[in-house]
Amino acid sequence: MTSVETRVRVRYAETDQMGVVYHANYLVWMEVGRVELCRSRGISYRDMEANDGIMLAVAEVQCRYAHPARYDEEVIVDTVINKAHPRMVVFGYRLLRAADGKLLAVGETKHVFCDRELRPAKLPAKYWPVFGI
Amino acid sequence: MTSVETRVRVRYAETDQMGVVYHANYLVWMEVGRVELCRSRGISYRDMEANDGIMLAVAEVQCRYAHPARYDEEVIVDTVINKAHPRMVVFGYRLLRAADGKLLAVGETKHVFCDRELRPAKLPAKYWPVFGI
Amino acid sequence: MTSVETRVRVRYAETDQMGVVYHANYLVWMEVGRVELCRSRGISYRDMEANDGIMLAVAEVQCRYAHPARYDEEVIVDTVINKAHPRMVVFGYRLLRAADGKLLAVGETKHVFCDRELRPAKLPAKYWPVFGI
Amino acid sequence: MTSVETRVRVRYAETDQMGVVYHANYLVWMEVGRVELCRSRGISYRDMEANDGIMLAVAEVQCRYAHPARYDEEVIVDTVINKAHPRMVVFGYRLLRAADGKLLAVGETKHVFCDRELRPAKLPAKYWPVFGI
Repeated sequence: MTSVETRVRVRYAETDQMGVVYHANYLVWMEVGRVELCRSRGISYRDMEANDGIMLAVAEVQCRYAHPARYDEEVIVDTVINKAHPRMVVFGYRLLRAADGKLLAVGETKHVFCDRELRPAKLPAKYWPVFGI
Repeated sequence: MTSVETRVRVRYAETDQMGVVYHANYLVWMEVGRVELCRSRGISYRDMEANDGIMLAVAEVQCRYAHPARYDEEVIVDTVINKAHPRMVVFGYRLLRAADGKLLAVGETKHVFCDRELRPAKLPAKYWPVFGI
Repeated sequence: MTSVETRVRVRYAETDQMGVVYHANYLVWMEVGRVELCRSRGISYRDMEANDGIMLAVAEVQCRYAHPARYDEEVIVDTVINKAHPRMVVFGYRLLRAADGKLLAVGETKHVFCDRELRPAKLPAKYWPVFGI
Repeated sequence: MTSVETRVRVRYAETDQMGVVYHANYLVWMEVGRVELCRSRGISYRDMEANDGIMLAVAEVQCRYAHPARYDEEVIVDTVINKAHPRMVVFGYRLLRAADGKLLAVGETKHVFCDRELRPAKLPAKYWPVFGI
């Protein structure tokens, strides 16, 4: 499966006194990336949650920071599904500075499909193609 | 009614590249202040929400910033109820630098009591004393 | 002067357990709005800060919340300059749900121009037209 | 070296519409944990940054989420130094629910010592004992 590109522009709120983006915000951008990947494949994560009660609980995250992102820069979040089966999905991310393609960070998040009470659940079959299952 | 003091320590995540606390975070500290005011009067906002389905939806906020808060400083959030009746409550806040009592900001938030569907609701009478009604 | 429209899409990170956007995030969107207003008038707030050492320290904010914003909704931030002179500027904001134009919130932020040490400063004349001075 | 315990109370702002803490906030708590570890060993991270221009740039983070943290819960951040030499330091974290000791998450962050321009730098020898070097 191919990756999906989303763009975010760094907000002032996302910087810290080191003059760069605070590292936890990269995880928020990854969230934006995977939501847009779903949208590009024809489903809305919001509807999946609201209509079918399927949540993507985060089970694991990792991120390696290669170069700091700075205020007002445009950042490309390049998202891909690294692995998926009816119980879990692993997304991979490459964050790039849009201006010159410089690699900012590489990350991965693992999610467990859950019901509204956050108990592990099986993804309904109609969603399998979205995740390449 | 008397005011209630809570303390927060400025986190690195709360600063921005101006080298001071990003202004929206003062609203988060005010939230901490009003929750602790409730706790000091014997009720848990969490339980009020979980058990009675009463939400304090924010209807209005205002904040005047007198002096910037900086990383790792301890900040006193001095919270008081300015006005309350069974449909709404107004909290007032004074934020002070703990080290020397310097005034950092003064704010106010107005809340409407709501039910779980966020429709305006009447506060159950058992909670009236907490808010000085 | 005319207002400038910017759009943001509500992130999962911006919601809270009430199922709507946490109120402090509206202030972050207002920041996005005023930065884009500056950009639409030909200046980059980043450059103003980096090259001329001019900061827009927030002196006052207020926001009235009319209707909750929800996850994944697109929000229009309609920004205007309400008042400006070489020492300060006041921005006004109307936040609207893009899908149907429903009014979500109305806000205002007052800023004092400062130098890098956050001392009040006079805005260089070359920037006056941007702010309608 | 022994671990250091810090406590944070979950803020409403830190929850999301899943009704639990948004996962990126665990990284903020880890930041609180490592700052308090430094403080417990007699140094202030703020002073190290302000006086000696030494920054701890985040190079890598990982976190496994075992159980969701919920609003108003008190969380213990148990922090330890897993590895350190004059160029880098690795902190390890265990996040526990204070009420019953339930494990919420396990994480690790790797940092590179940098100067004010965020170039890799060697940690001054006077700080070595703090990090167990």
